[in-house]
Amino acid sequence: MKLLNLVLMLLFFVAIANAQKIMGFTDANAAKQIDWEKQFDAQLNAKNQDTWMQFLSSHPHHVGSPQDKANAEFMAKLFQSWCYQTEIVSYYVLFPTPKTRLLELLGSKPFKAKLEEPTLKEDKTSGQKTEQLPSYNAYSADGDVTAELVFVNHGIPADYEELEQMGIDVKGKIVIAKYGGSWRGIKPKVAAEHGAIGCLIYSDPEDDGYARGDVYPEGAFRPKNGVQRGSVMDMPLYPGDPLTPGVGATKDAKRLDRNDAITIMKIPVLPISYEDALPLLQSLGGQVVPVSWRGALPITYHVGPGKDKVHLKLQFNWDIKPLYNVIAKLPGSELPDEWIIRGNHHDAWVNGADDPISGIVSELDEARAIGELAKKGFKLKRTLVYCAWDGEEPGVIGSTEWTEDHQNELRKKAVFYLNTDANSRGFISAAGSHTLEPFFNEIANDVMDPQTGVSIKERKYASDMVTADKTARVKMSGNKNIKLGALGAGSDWSGFLQFLGIASLNLGFGGEGQGGEYHSIYDSYDHFIKFKDPGFQYGIALSKTAGRAMMRMANADVLPFDVNSFYKTLAGYVTELKTLLDNTRTETDQENNMIRDKLYDLAKDPTKTYQAPKMKDEVPYLNFSDLENAMEQLKNSTGEFQKQYGSATRLPIDKQMELNGILYKVERSLINEKGLPRRPWYKHQIYAPGYYTGYGVKTLPGIREAIDQRNWKEAQENIGIVSRTLENYTQQVRQAMNIVTR
Amino acid sequence: MKLLNLVLMLLFFVAIANAQKIMGFTDANAAKQIDWEKQFDAQLNAKNQDTWMQFLSSHPHHVGSPQDKANAEFMAKLFQSWCYQTEIVSYYVLFPTPKTRLLELLGSKPFKAKLEEPTLKEDKTSGQKTEQLPSYNAYSADGDVTAELVFVNHGIPADYEELEQMGIDVKGKIVIAKYGGSWRGIKPKVAAEHGAIGCLIYSDPEDDGYARGDVYPEGAFRPKNGVQRGSVMDMPLYPGDPLTPGVGATKDAKRLDRNDAITIMKIPVLPISYEDALPLLQSLGGQVVPVSWRGALPITYHVGPGKDKVHLKLQFNWDIKPLYNVIAKLPGSELPDEWIIRGNHHDAWVNGADDPISGIVSELDEARAIGELAKKGFKLKRTLVYCAWDGEEPGVIGSTEWTEDHQNELRKKAVFYLNTDANSRGFISAAGSHTLEPFFNEIANDVMDPQTGVSIKERKYASDMVTADKTARVKMSGNKNIKLGALGAGSDWSGFLQFLGIASLNLGFGGEGQGGEYHSIYDSYDHFIKFKDPGFQYGIALSKTAGRAMMRMANADVLPFDVNSFYKTLAGYVTELKTLLDNTRTETDQENNMIRDKLYDLAKDPTKTYQAPKMKDEVPYLNFSDLENAMEQLKNSTGEFQKQYGSATRLPIDKQMELNGILYKVERSLINEKGLPRRPWYKHQIYAPGYYTGYGVKTLPGIREAIDQRNWKEAQENIGIVSRTLENYTQQVRQAMNIVTR
Repeated sequence: MKLLNLVLMLLFFVAIANAQKIMGFTDANAAKQIDWEKQFDAQLNAKNQDTWMQFLSSHPHHVGSPQDKANAEFMAKLFQSWCYQTEIVSYYVLFPTPKTRLLELLGSKPFKAKLEEPTLKEDKTSGQKTEQLPSYNAYSADGDVTAELVFVNHGIPADYEELEQMGIDVKGKIVIAKYGGSWRGIKPKVAAEHGAIGCLIYSDPEDDGYARGDVYPEGAFRPKNGVQRGSVMDMPLYPGDPLTPGVGATKDAKRLDRNDAITIMKIPVLPISYEDALPLLQSLGGQVVPVSWRGALPITYHVGPGKDKVHLKLQFNWDIKPLYNVIAKLPGSELPDEWIIRGNHHDAWVNGADDPISGIVSELDEARAIGELAKKGFKLKRTLVYCAWDGEEPGVIGSTEWTEDHQNELRKKAVFYLNTDANSRGFISAAGSHTLEPFFNEIANDVMDPQTGVSIKERKYASDMVTADKTARVKMSGNKNIKLGALGAGSDWSGFLQFLGIASLNLGFGGEGQGGEYHSIYDSYDHFIKFKDPGFQYGIALSKTAGRAMMRMANADVLPFDVNSFYKTLAGYVTELKTLLDNTRTETDQENNMIRDKLYDLAKDPTKTYQAPKMKDEVPYLNFSDLENAMEQLKNSTGEFQKQYGSATRLPIDKQMELNGILYKVERSLINEKGLPRRPWYKHQIYAPGYYTGYGVKTLPGIREAIDQRNWKEAQENIGIVSRTLENYTQQVRQAMNIVTR
Repeated sequence: MKLLNLVLMLLFFVAIANAQKIMGFTDANAAKQIDWEKQFDAQLNAKNQDTWMQFLSSHPHHVGSPQDKANAEFMAKLFQSWCYQTEIVSYYVLFPTPKTRLLELLGSKPFKAKLEEPTLKEDKTSGQKTEQLPSYNAYSADGDVTAELVFVNHGIPADYEELEQMGIDVKGKIVIAKYGGSWRGIKPKVAAEHGAIGCLIYSDPEDDGYARGDVYPEGAFRPKNGVQRGSVMDMPLYPGDPLTPGVGATKDAKRLDRNDAITIMKIPVLPISYEDALPLLQSLGGQVVPVSWRGALPITYHVGPGKDKVHLKLQFNWDIKPLYNVIAKLPGSELPDEWIIRGNHHDAWVNGADDPISGIVSELDEARAIGELAKKGFKLKRTLVYCAWDGEEPGVIGSTEWTEDHQNELRKKAVFYLNTDANSRGFISAAGSHTLEPFFNEIANDVMDPQTGVSIKERKYASDMVTADKTARVKMSGNKNIKLGALGAGSDWSGFLQFLGIASLNLGFGGEGQGGEYHSIYDSYDHFIKFKDPGFQYGIALSKTAGRAMMRMANADVLPFDVNSFYKTLAGYVTELKTLLDNTRTETDQENNMIRDKLYDLAKDPTKTYQAPKMKDEVPYLNFSDLENAMEQLKNSTGEFQKQYGSATRLPIDKQMELNGILYKVERSLINEKGLPRRPWYKHQIYAPGYYTGYGVKTLPGIREAIDQRNWKEAQENIGIVSRTLENYTQQVRQAMNIVTR
């Protein structure tokens, strides 16, 4: 008997030791949660995702189209059927569509661009010509321009430095840029800053066409006539409706005059296929491009200008169109005023099977499964808010207007925002607020990869190791922690994270789904099930991953934010900044010396036009002490708090509530209401889209971009601003610490 | 008066201080030498170079052609007219030429390759069809094979590792490889090692065609039908006539049976144009190639095999042909048995205006100018030997046979060999024995760049700085010393340096002359004067540079070898080797761990065929102590000697002669008569062409290649061999030291 007792006791301890823990949960609650998660997994159904995708991508469903509204209503009905409190929230936004599109090469070998994606018999929806939006860049200016053409590579600032050295000025010219190297909206913006009067953007087959693989319909990649549509709204200034910055575009909102809307491009811009680009590029004379500028067309790429001029005429209908956001709530049983928000957009440029329907069907299935669990008695403490956003494609409009419209309520209630978008076969990728990194990694450890049976975290690690170079491997080896990327722009988190300071996460699978369908009529159901995620196995994996995040965040006893993880990431950014400044100084000195020693003039080929770079101002040493002191306090406070975090689940319930109230608002203290220099809408002091990169994030943007722009005074000022921001953050952490320890 | 005296004295000292010094010359002799050099420069004449090029490239002049012999006789007459003792030295060597060339794609879309470079009206000599050698690879096997085709990228060993991971075996297949990534002869050799039965090599427009610039005749680059001829003799085993390794191919030399000549390729090989390659590559199925394998043809590159087979039929005339080396001597006035040797080949694949005529006309003008000085009373202590080699293109044959034939005399008399080959506009580039580095730098400081007016050394530094990346710049900044490259294979130094241990230097200008004419019918006078070196200003610059080297070496009081410079370079190589071994160990461990952890299997796309790499044997630690001890002795002895070197010009003449006798033979002590593993012809222990890179050098080849091949026992043995070699070297240096100090 005694032996049996001992064995039982041992088994009990083994069970306890083996019992899976969840961050922020008591052991007992964790066990229950994990049980529900298993039932949740069992509820998910690839057939649903398939069926819904067939409907939602059956017709073009851009903003203002009948199918856009029909889709919103379809989804609202689904949410209602799963017992969500559902509404369709509408906004009225500026959404230009093309009236005239003309592009021609004049001169001895005249050519008129087709600007047309042909119907393919292998792609059922590609023939819906009357419903499709033609290929265009939304928020291009109206214009009718005729000028010489210049090839500007990606059309980013560094390319114009090279052009200057080649003696090429784009003033009064039309430029042609390749897609890639930056978000597309940067290209016409920088072109206009340099005096160009028109901009063409084309998909080079090197990056997006036959060089990558066989083209559609034989393979997945962009065919010669495929065109990447897309917005060129100047989103790094502010996203959303250009006429209502900072407020919801309700029916009676006060609107700017269109001429005062600074996010509308100043020059006409048109995206074209590589078939249409070929004769234009062939017409160019001038110097041969630098090696890194070459594409995969079978020509010698020249910078231009060409002898023959190009004529570009664009006119748009500048209409106000309604948006339909679907907002579906499952009220929390204990903390209904703490919101766990989930979103994916539903509007597309054309049929958008991958972008965004693959994401939204995964979200729908996830919401349905949770609804099913709720019917079986699964209670969630906090309120779930499932959103299907409209108007993401033209400029993250639906989510931005909603967050602007509901900003006061969201500041109070929003705990967390989880975003997804297009999804396909492959590896998990995650970016977001770094307080969420341990929370996310715990989930990534619990979701199995459908193709290999190991966790999505293990598979991500395997992929990172195999694709890394030899040096990086040695550094990474054994560290399976998935480092969260930082969020710039590109999808619906902007209003939540960067305008309101709500901790956010963006998730998606990819890397094995192949494609060149992006923003073309070929982003279709037929393409998706052949090349992107046949069988929707990664749609299910995404539902599992995002669903766990929603349910754990909704049910945690203590909210799973790790402020010390934020500190550690930030410390890396601060080091990066100092290195950036030091390297800028070294390189400036080096380069100025080389200019002074005339090395550029001596090395140049005298038969070619070449301007040596100009001397740059010297780089001063900046005073980082405020920031260093703030970082030291942050390190201590977050380190101490996180040590005590484990004990917080044992606090009395009112203390837990008080603690949670601080924890989910700690991200708010990273908001500075004045916003970033020259773009007050972006208020987050740690993460912002780059002024000259667009989607690409700039961390510690106030300081980093000032250094990039060699504005030393502004860099110093922003060191001060960030330091005070971090002091506020530390204050919040200390308050949290007081609750845990008192 | 006193003041005047003082002023005169001061001026005298200033003059002495400013008097230019030359390494190895007394101040007085240096002043005279510099005076002669000025007269030498004034003698050089671009018109000569132009006129001679017009004649020498007027007809195809490959081995065995009438113009080949006519050119030799033309040059011999020139040398005679400049008072050189001139002879034409003939050898009789195996030189295959095509009898049958057939390449066709069978199956549903049959295609027969043109294998023809068209006549261009803009290129006067391109129409000499009956005289041109057709496009082929010399020393290909005869063969008639029909098989599936596989694309193997550059066809080097690393590419076959990737193919294995893709599940592709080339056994029994024909492979198609891009030019580039190695010397061409490596491609069929490695293909045959992997069981392929035929090999095609094509020029991809990415590296050699329209991607680089406008094609000929509009621009300089390779047109779609242009083909790179060239030898595929297995020169890393031994260069020269395949039938007479190690001995001169005189009329009655003992010859191997052709079947026993191991440098003849085992499979048929044919070079083709990118126009001919296109349908073949398009016919390939299978996986899409890795990104780094892509070329610039407007297709998706697939690995293959294709459904349709390829038929390749090649037959050659295996004739013995005579070679005509021109050997012209200007006997030394004091030391006629110390030879300063200069060479450039004269044979071409077709008209060869650039390769090699640009080099040989510069050499001729240099020889003429020296002849003119001699007539005016300029005396050279040592004998100059000017050579114009035949048979370089098929396998460095003319020079190899001559050095083999005269090996005993050369071992005694040869002080130095200076090689040049094709030359064009741009920057000086130099490689050779590292004892010659200070000698060469002194010259590079004294020759002015024709386009900028600064020294060629200054301009080279400017170019290196401007093209370097930011990290490299910081390292290089301020150090204008031109680091000599190490010599592998590729031109006529092999017999001198690697077979006999004669200190050698290879010089040439380039980098601004553009072209895709290499080894095609378009390497013509018309191409050259438009794109390579209009006005022959760099032909003159090369004459100035090489002429100074010849005259200074011929007249030095103490020969300008710097053994400490050799030590310093060698110390870098030894460090490289240790790092190579350590990195190989780290990477092997890393990779084996990754294989053991199944990371490759987890990361792979399950829809694609993929074999994880195989585990490799562990890398042992090797005993470097012998080598380290030998290096320490070398450091001390060469350091001490070079400190005393400056005083050697004050030695009595007999001591100087004794010292010089040691100095020019010190390179001989780097020869090991047994040669390198598996290739006894290559005897130099420091420099050799890579067994699997061809032209590309491998320094400390016995050790390095054993590590590359993971043959640890052989690596250890070769550490011993090199150590003993260096001990011998140190002995020589100590003897030299004794002469200087006793």
